[in-house]
Amino acid sequence: MSVVSSPDDSAQMSHHASPRESPSVRDGSIESGTESLSDFDRVVLLEQKDSLRELHTIIRDRSSSNADFVFHADRLIRQVVEEGLNHLPITPVDVITPDNVVYTGIKFVRGNCAIAVSRSGEAMELAVRQCCKSIRIGKILVDEKNKVLYTRWMPDIAERRVLLLYPLLHTGSALVQAIHELVHQGVDQENIYLLSMFSTFGGIRRVHRAFPLVNIITSDISDDVPFHFTMKYFGTD
Amino acid sequence: MSVVSSPDDSAQMSHHASPRESPSVRDGSIESGTESLSDFDRVVLLEQKDSLRELHTIIRDRSSSNADFVFHADRLIRQVVEEGLNHLPITPVDVITPDNVVYTGIKFVRGNCAIAVSRSGEAMELAVRQCCKSIRIGKILVDEKNKVLYTRWMPDIAERRVLLLYPLLHTGSALVQAIHELVHQGVDQENIYLLSMFSTFGGIRRVHRAFPLVNIITSDISDDVPFHFTMKYFGTD
Amino acid sequence: MSVVSSPDDSAQMSHHASPRESPSVRDGSIESGTESLSDFDRVVLLEQKDSLRELHTIIRDRSSSNADFVFHADRLIRQVVEEGLNHLPITPVDVITPDNVVYTGIKFVRGNCAIAVSRSGEAMELAVRQCCKSIRIGKILVDEKNKVLYTRWMPDIAERRVLLLYPLLHTGSALVQAIHELVHQGVDQENIYLLSMFSTFGGIRRVHRAFPLVNIITSDISDDVPFHFTMKYFGTD
Amino acid sequence: MSVVSSPDDSAQMSHHASPRESPSVRDGSIESGTESLSDFDRVVLLEQKDSLRELHTIIRDRSSSNADFVFHADRLIRQVVEEGLNHLPITPVDVITPDNVVYTGIKFVRGNCAIAVSRSGEAMELAVRQCCKSIRIGKILVDEKNKVLYTRWMPDIAERRVLLLYPLLHTGSALVQAIHELVHQGVDQENIYLLSMFSTFGGIRRVHRAFPLVNIITSDISDDVPFHFTMKYFGTD
Repeated sequence: MSVVSSPDDSAQMSHHASPRESPSVRDGSIESGTESLSDFDRVVLLEQKDSLRELHTIIRDRSSSNADFVFHADRLIRQVVEEGLNHLPITPVDVITPDNVVYTGIKFVRGNCAIAVSRSGEAMELAVRQCCKSIRIGKILVDEKNKVLYTRWMPDIAERRVLLLYPLLHTGSALVQAIHELVHQGVDQENIYLLSMFSTFGGIRRVHRAFPLVNIITSDISDDVPFHFTMKYFGTD
Repeated sequence: MSVVSSPDDSAQMSHHASPRESPSVRDGSIESGTESLSDFDRVVLLEQKDSLRELHTIIRDRSSSNADFVFHADRLIRQVVEEGLNHLPITPVDVITPDNVVYTGIKFVRGNCAIAVSRSGEAMELAVRQCCKSIRIGKILVDEKNKVLYTRWMPDIAERRVLLLYPLLHTGSALVQAIHELVHQGVDQENIYLLSMFSTFGGIRRVHRAFPLVNIITSDISDDVPFHFTMKYFGTD
Repeated sequence: MSVVSSPDDSAQMSHHASPRESPSVRDGSIESGTESLSDFDRVVLLEQKDSLRELHTIIRDRSSSNADFVFHADRLIRQVVEEGLNHLPITPVDVITPDNVVYTGIKFVRGNCAIAVSRSGEAMELAVRQCCKSIRIGKILVDEKNKVLYTRWMPDIAERRVLLLYPLLHTGSALVQAIHELVHQGVDQENIYLLSMFSTFGGIRRVHRAFPLVNIITSDISDDVPFHFTMKYFGTD
Repeated sequence: MSVVSSPDDSAQMSHHASPRESPSVRDGSIESGTESLSDFDRVVLLEQKDSLRELHTIIRDRSSSNADFVFHADRLIRQVVEEGLNHLPITPVDVITPDNVVYTGIKFVRGNCAIAVSRSGEAMELAVRQCCKSIRIGKILVDEKNKVLYTRWMPDIAERRVLLLYPLLHTGSALVQAIHELVHQGVDQENIYLLSMFSTFGGIRRVHRAFPLVNIITSDISDDVPFHFTMKYFGTD
């Protein structure tokens, strides 16, 4: 896992970032031309472990059956969600064990929710539910002309941290529109955590040019984008 | 994630271990008295990220409801299983994407299976199924006097790599008996990957004294063992 | 389970309907004023067994926790989906057992898919996946003015049978619009199977006045509609 | 669904049994030689609907892949569990809806648990969890010589109703031993609900000769028993 924090948020984020946690870049996929991850702030790339690499392989393989694709996509999404959770604010908590001992642990601060950017983001809802018990899930639909067609929010969305679900960050234009809508609702940029399995440097740049404080968590940065992801997940190909 | 490999297996294991991947030791839980993880070979401790720490907290909290306990235990087990998978042997594979492009990925070598050490190990079966599509799951029952009462193997177990499921590695005596039985069936020590959520240094030492080449993957090393784990998971408390 | 078939489709539907399978009407919920289920064709009401009645109770109870609500809603949806599957066309098939014996069974004719009427119908997607391995799931979004905002079809939708997902059949106006769109795509009315947990006689009448051959499968017919269903399922209340 | 109650328990069971609910016997599988279901009390055969018949077909087909087998076995088990739940005692309950209306529903009486007869019964645990939120699951291991090797009970098992999990009721000898052990623990015969997917008349007779008041819920009665069920479910074939 790699975290590149901007200096000014180091205090708040210090429990996440560590200079020793740079990614083990095995296949060069996180460099594209002259760019590298270190040029970007607030971008987390999941550590490229073998289990993750196998998931990327199965998802890109056009011969994967629909059932295999969905099973492994769900596994991949769960890993991105679990990593995303690591970046939400925590608070220490003492609990009592069955042996009547105090155990000093942590808990996440309440007030998180998920917003799926339709339709592709809906492919991530099941995995989110498997990681976040009873999380509230809202929705925003942006059409191909980047017009917001439809939204479903929680009434108190402005006070919440938002896991924004969007599998492929390619050009980023629909996503910029979705974030714009969230910010318009009063959500702080810093409280938005974009969970995206497959990203390009171009897409990341586009999002951060508009909203530099949004957090981006992704399992792959590459120009080799599996555009068929959503269609294959839902079988509408 | 932390991997401490013995020198002689560095070639085979080199794609897993990295000197920069030491654990971020936040709460001292991986040191016990004068011992530290660096004294041990073939032991992998999951990186102590916030998401993991919250799961440990909920599992130790005696006030967690049964439903909450099971939900979060399943999440924790999935993380241990996913990390365990990272240590199985891989092979490169070229796949063709829907865009007709060759993608160079990896796949795991076939021939893995899981063996649950009854009864506690059975609490891990569901999560294993959610990570390993259609994995074969065998069983070994060791009673309180460390006698093997019952086994169910695959006929070709000797040729397989074994994910050995056992949630709490405390004294390790039942587990040593189970491994003994596996080795007696012809399984190579090096092909055994013990997945255990909660371990003690004493238990690790006990297992490795008898079987130094067994791989141990765990999410916690501490003397503070949640002995109620299995009883609470199954509700037989 | 209750099936009330029109006489002219008795041949095709005969394996579903049976004069002895009338519902055990315990609570009168399937009569509303002067109407009764027997006035309607192609409407299937799930048998009102205790397990189902408990699910209805939990879903209507405003004190149910969000996690309880989702768990039991998923159970209810699975039962409606399983009943819906019973009405799809089948074909006999001989299979060979491991003992080398011929077993004469059935299989469903291929070519089924699901279409969720957004947003409420999306609450049914997970349960559909748990019952129908790798089913294709399309989508249609109808806004509050009954305008179709968005669709995602399979290219061959006109050849398919469609499980239409929509939890609450109340006035039925959005649904009529969705069915209109499907029929416009070339889907036969008879090939549409509306799965709806909670229905009113008014809604059923409205749908059947426009599309008399559409099949309706529901677990409850009552004027006491749990309007909070979708908001509570997704936590946007 | 078919319920054949003995006369003397008609009062208690009356909300389950109905003379009009006899099974639609399509393939004669519920008659074997001169026997028929009507010779038996306290035996419930699930209604042989198409969805169920397809599951039976897939499970018997030796060419089903392991992943397909497990998926459809889980669906079948869920249906047997859901039917089993219908026979547990209920109590009326008034709940308040979000619209502030009283809804008269039911709830099941507390004090149920599940006991898996190892090892085969363990194949049913996941599906039980998907139907019964946070149910307690105990275990009893009977070896091939019908000796009880191992048990895990709830301390208060004598006060509970027991869903006894055992997929194949063939000779019934191991099961008789397991029930004997339960009764020895103080469980009332009438409080035992055997959930078994595949049964023979011989097995049912054997169980009821020893314990005539035990309830048996099954999805198939036939001499054509899929003996490979457990081995294929766990992949130890």
